[in-house]
Amino acid sequence: MNNKAIGIFDSGIGGLTVYNAIKQRMPREKLIYFGDTARLPYGTKSSETIIKYSMENAQFLLKKEVKIIIVACNSSSSYSLPFLQDKLSIPVVGVIEPGAEAAVKLSKKKIGVIGTTATIASKAYEKAILTKKPDAEVISKDCPLLVSLVEEGWINHEVTRLVIEEYLLPLKEKAIDILVLGCTHYPVLKDQISDVIGKEIRLIDSGETTSKKVYSVLKNRAWLSASDNRVEDEFYVSDFPERFKNVGEIFLKRKLEKVNIAEETS
Amino acid sequence: MNNKAIGIFDSGIGGLTVYNAIKQRMPREKLIYFGDTARLPYGTKSSETIIKYSMENAQFLLKKEVKIIIVACNSSSSYSLPFLQDKLSIPVVGVIEPGAEAAVKLSKKKIGVIGTTATIASKAYEKAILTKKPDAEVISKDCPLLVSLVEEGWINHEVTRLVIEEYLLPLKEKAIDILVLGCTHYPVLKDQISDVIGKEIRLIDSGETTSKKVYSVLKNRAWLSASDNRVEDEFYVSDFPERFKNVGEIFLKRKLEKVNIAEETS
Repeated sequence: MNNKAIGIFDSGIGGLTVYNAIKQRMPREKLIYFGDTARLPYGTKSSETIIKYSMENAQFLLKKEVKIIIVACNSSSSYSLPFLQDKLSIPVVGVIEPGAEAAVKLSKKKIGVIGTTATIASKAYEKAILTKKPDAEVISKDCPLLVSLVEEGWINHEVTRLVIEEYLLPLKEKAIDILVLGCTHYPVLKDQISDVIGKEIRLIDSGETTSKKVYSVLKNRAWLSASDNRVEDEFYVSDFPERFKNVGEIFLKRKLEKVNIAEETS
Repeated sequence: MNNKAIGIFDSGIGGLTVYNAIKQRMPREKLIYFGDTARLPYGTKSSETIIKYSMENAQFLLKKEVKIIIVACNSSSSYSLPFLQDKLSIPVVGVIEPGAEAAVKLSKKKIGVIGTTATIASKAYEKAILTKKPDAEVISKDCPLLVSLVEEGWINHEVTRLVIEEYLLPLKEKAIDILVLGCTHYPVLKDQISDVIGKEIRLIDSGETTSKKVYSVLKNRAWLSASDNRVEDEFYVSDFPERFKNVGEIFLKRKLEKVNIAEETS
């Protein structure tokens, strides 16, 4: 297993923050990323459809002989994770559980959660947090504009700062001590969010918490790569590789040389 | 035919600006609106998929016995219009042709076109304008954040003004005299856009130009409603009626009492 790759899928491009975190923690692992760009967004689809698409994405990665699958998409993690874990013979890790776990562990006061409108409406993080700590106080807020701002590349932009202020200052006033970034796009704006709400509120980046979890799953099974060489990762999308390349640069801070179309899934 | 309804479909909610314009011009007509909210956005889908979905949406409206179908969606107008016009026995009107026609008629200098990234990348307006006037000079700019800002209800908001300035002041500097609002969401921001670029640049609202076209098609066939009573319009979506109700208020400036789920199309 050691030489096999780590598979990651997302409905689109946001999962690249999870990719980044895994790559940083485990630079010798080969990563295969699949973004289902033809069928995004998942957040506005029914749970049956999300499960069906997620299974198809997992099958694509299985054909590449991955040793573990990371569901780097909040909607898919929320609906399809138990199903995938039941059907597949390799480990499957989602982004919600590790984030919720870290929030519960670190919070002494109220926990703030931000995400897309669909994620917040699904109450996925709230449920995961309350399962772990039934008396936790969770304050949720959808921040729909942040995804568009990230994809536009307006990271250090006055507009983005104003939008973050409008969304997050009311959360700060409610005295949260933890803020869960419940959307894979948001870690790109981590510094900007921290500047607005202050360093005393700790941010939970689900990319980071997920990468910790992946590391521990692989380590426990002795499946970590034994190679000393850095291998080239692979990127696949179900449509629009050019857009993925362009917007991908905002996430990766480097050029993506090659993005393939995975025709069998679209 | 006179008593039959006018059918309108869009991939989601933006087509309500076309609905508004038709209702204003023909208040005695009954309108039936269908928003394919389960499968939006269309702009990032292949032409085959857009044609397939558009045909399904048209079939839904045909079952309601409409006398004309308005394709109030730029992506669908761009790809599926010739197909629908060929297959259906009733008239089908799109949003691109009327806007392009008005732009060519009114412009004495350069024509600006704004839209979503997908619409601008498709060059749909540019092609329609150049077909009518081969030496026209067209300057296009995608403005992806505007849709999210409208749906967030941030119409008279400092952030929206800053975003409009950033997107449109460079167009103004290029000395356009016409700006085509090539996205059905944008007419909601008409006043704000005019404030930024100045009253001397004329805005083409494709809702308005499309409603003129619909009026003339119905009048030429003597199919206009003969009724003196205002009848209640009908609204259908393929998913998430609550969100359609909420965001619909931003477009209609009134509450939508009833939004039905059209299960057969989703």
